[in-house]
Amino acid sequence: MPRSLEDAPTTVPVRLGERSYDIAVADGGWDALPAFLKPALERSWAGRGCLKALILTDDHVAKLPYPGLVARALGSLGIEATTSVVPHGEASKGLATAAGLYEELVATAADRHTLVVAVGGGVIGDLGGFVAATFARGLPLLMVPTTLLAQVDSSVGGKVGVNLPKVKNIVGSFHQPIAVWIDVASLNDLPDRELRCGLAEVVKYGVILDAAFFDSLEADAEAILGRRPESLRRIVARSCELKADVVSKDEREETGLRAVLNFGHTIGHAVEATAGYGGAFQHGEAVAVGMVAESRLAERLGWVGRDFTTRLTRLLDRFGLPTSIAGLDPGPLLESMARDKKNQGGRIRLVLPRRMGHVELTDAAETADLKNLLDDLCGPAPL
Amino acid sequence: MPRSLEDAPTTVPVRLGERSYDIAVADGGWDALPAFLKPALERSWAGRGCLKALILTDDHVAKLPYPGLVARALGSLGIEATTSVVPHGEASKGLATAAGLYEELVATAADRHTLVVAVGGGVIGDLGGFVAATFARGLPLLMVPTTLLAQVDSSVGGKVGVNLPKVKNIVGSFHQPIAVWIDVASLNDLPDRELRCGLAEVVKYGVILDAAFFDSLEADAEAILGRRPESLRRIVARSCELKADVVSKDEREETGLRAVLNFGHTIGHAVEATAGYGGAFQHGEAVAVGMVAESRLAERLGWVGRDFTTRLTRLLDRFGLPTSIAGLDPGPLLESMARDKKNQGGRIRLVLPRRMGHVELTDAAETADLKNLLDDLCGPAPL
Ligand SMILES: NC(=O)c1ccc[n+]([C@@H]2O[C@H](COP(=O)([O-])OP(=O)(O)OC[C@H]3O[C@@H](n4cnc5c(N)ncnc54)[C@H](O)[C@@H]3O)[C@@H](O)[C@H]2O)c1
Ligand SMILES: NC(=O)c1ccc[n+]([C@@H]2O[C@H](COP(=O)([O-])OP(=O)(O)OC[C@H]3O[C@@H](n4cnc5c(N)ncnc54)[C@H](O)[C@@H]3O)[C@@H](O)[C@H]2O)c1
Ligand SMILES: [Zn+2]
Ligand SMILES: [Zn+2]
Repeated sequence: MPRSLEDAPTTVPVRLGERSYDIAVADGGWDALPAFLKPALERSWAGRGCLKALILTDDHVAKLPYPGLVARALGSLGIEATTSVVPHGEASKGLATAAGLYEELVATAADRHTLVVAVGGGVIGDLGGFVAATFARGLPLLMVPTTLLAQVDSSVGGKVGVNLPKVKNIVGSFHQPIAVWIDVASLNDLPDRELRCGLAEVVKYGVILDAAFFDSLEADAEAILGRRPESLRRIVARSCELKADVVSKDEREETGLRAVLNFGHTIGHAVEATAGYGGAFQHGEAVAVGMVAESRLAERLGWVGRDFTTRLTRLLDRFGLPTSIAGLDPGPLLESMARDKKNQGGRIRLVLPRRMGHVELTDAAETADLKNLLDDLCGPAPL
Repeated sequence: MPRSLEDAPTTVPVRLGERSYDIAVADGGWDALPAFLKPALERSWAGRGCLKALILTDDHVAKLPYPGLVARALGSLGIEATTSVVPHGEASKGLATAAGLYEELVATAADRHTLVVAVGGGVIGDLGGFVAATFARGLPLLMVPTTLLAQVDSSVGGKVGVNLPKVKNIVGSFHQPIAVWIDVASLNDLPDRELRCGLAEVVKYGVILDAAFFDSLEADAEAILGRRPESLRRIVARSCELKADVVSKDEREETGLRAVLNFGHTIGHAVEATAGYGGAFQHGEAVAVGMVAESRLAERLGWVGRDFTTRLTRLLDRFGLPTSIAGLDPGPLLESMARDKKNQGGRIRLVLPRRMGHVELTDAAETADLKNLLDDLCGPAPL
């Protein structure tokens, strides 16, 4: 679908003191990338004097035009790029792949000014970000996320890392990019299921931080599912803005503020860990059912009315996301929740809604309440 | 040698804003460790709530009392420690060992408050520091350096990292400890050659930053070589203070200020890389000959007189350190220097002395001058 006229990208600032940077949300418009990137390079110590780049992508994204578009933009800034392609999928996000990338950086005589560009989904962003964080004590990083999840979630906040064989995301650090370039047109190539998974996080931002945004998702659901560029730009930009705002108040997850982002994730992670391995639940799908279950818990504590959960369920449903965990085994779910890192003093802590646009971290739920809830939700009877 | 009365440790503050911490320099006196460590834990976000620790050491140091003394001090603070022993030597400072340590942290159910304690030389400090920097996005770190080099150099400054098979120290980051505990009594077990290597860095601090300190090394050389505790405490504390001062002005090696620490290291690294592999030159020995060679270069530029080099050579000589590169091949030395990371625009940059206690980063030396110098120094004729 050729566009005769492309708008200038929307810019979302991420305020982190001397580590501040901008996220550009564009629809095509790659000609604007050099002008966007140049000041970002000049602002950062490591970016100044950048002459080389390593573009990291996976074998799916390598077939799409984006790595080439990045290389062209870099070329116009006098930066010579080499491209490294890793197999797609979570298995690439490990120490072995990182070790191979370190060797490639050595082979291309990388120095502290070599730019790492991650072009792809969250796997590529987390892996490329980790390599950038740990090579030569920190290389400048440009994120070019191409999945909705990466655009609204993993490329914002500076969390980078790799998995161990048995534990996800456990090796890593915080490393902020010098800039993020998002082209929502890249979402046209994304499989429906991947798009839906990203939408679960988008819905989450509405619930936890912005009631008006939630309203707008309801109003605009058709256009979003139809991947209308203006709608995608709007929801991506607003999601980035909302997450960036939380991150700028709690960059290293130390004050507890960042915990609001975990709405839907306490039960969601348990679902993913216990039922997700067969592919039954992808992360975003687990978050969707997690949000519904946690909303039910908020009802039982008297925090929200039944209508709240109904409204949330309806929107997730329209986005094609699952909303029920009927049929799962409640025992392992509870065990998995008991291991959550938010817990303190043996009590399970969750982030629960008070009203649309506002959540709170609480340990008010008794383990018995939780057990009852899960028994009910996992049971065969319709709720 | 039992001591009836042990002094309270000397404390050196390292000023790095919210990452500030203290270095304690003690002679024995391990009973003071809990009282020193407690406020350090409480000051740091990650240290608060610390209930577990992983003590990392190597098989040499594991035979000495220090890992056990650390475990006992932690125990008295209610922190349960497990100890992990890796083989001694540079080969342990790699990604494979780091991966094994990550697995141990997982096996002991480490969380973001688990303390990593590095008890040993620079290898253990760099490796343990890297694991602390990258597990769960950053664990609190306590350094307990037991070699002179680690006490005066590698445990100050926050540089942590591991080697790749062909490139030293290339994978890593900056991760400041919450505290450093130094017991100079541990140096009693250190082989002479290791002690001498640490002394090369101590001499360096005098030359680059503190003429009075250099004087005191000359005056106190016998006592230092005799490992008199008061002398060791004094030189370790002052060295830490001098390095900490540089580091606090250029924490991430971005302003160029930290470059002064490279005196003796430009030629020294070249010597280590081209002649050191057979074990002919250990790092500190290479730095010693590097300082003498760079001092000669400063003479040729008219920055210092011949007496300057003579004085430096005499002190290194008294400390049993080599001062001559006669017999080495000048060609590979020059090639290696041309690859130094300080270089800019094709010119070799060195840190050279102007007077005792003061050095400057310069590219004033022509490659031809350098070649002449190396030809002369490597030649068989006595200088
Ligand atoms: N760092 C963070 O804060 C954070 C937050 C959330 C998730 N994550 C991580 O993100 C990862 C999941 O991200 P993801 O869902 O993007 O996974 P992904 O990177 O595996 O991408 C999903 C699939 O989409 C393909 N793809 C990417 N862009 C495409 C495009 N434009 N068109 C067609 N196909 C495309 C990929 O090749 C892959 O097969 C996980 O590893 C998760 O841990 C990180
Ligand atoms: N991070 C930094 O800023 C920095 C600075 C300088 C050097 N380094 C690194 O430090 C390392 C060298 O440090 P090192 O010289 O301490 O090497 P090391 O850790 O290998 O220690 C040298 C030897 O001494 C033994 N040892 C340690 N303590 C002892 C004691 N008290 N008594 C007897 N033996 C003892 C060790 O087992 C080892 O065999 C290198 O890897 C280098 O890259 C790092
Ligand atoms: Zn999520
Ligand atoms: Zn050195």
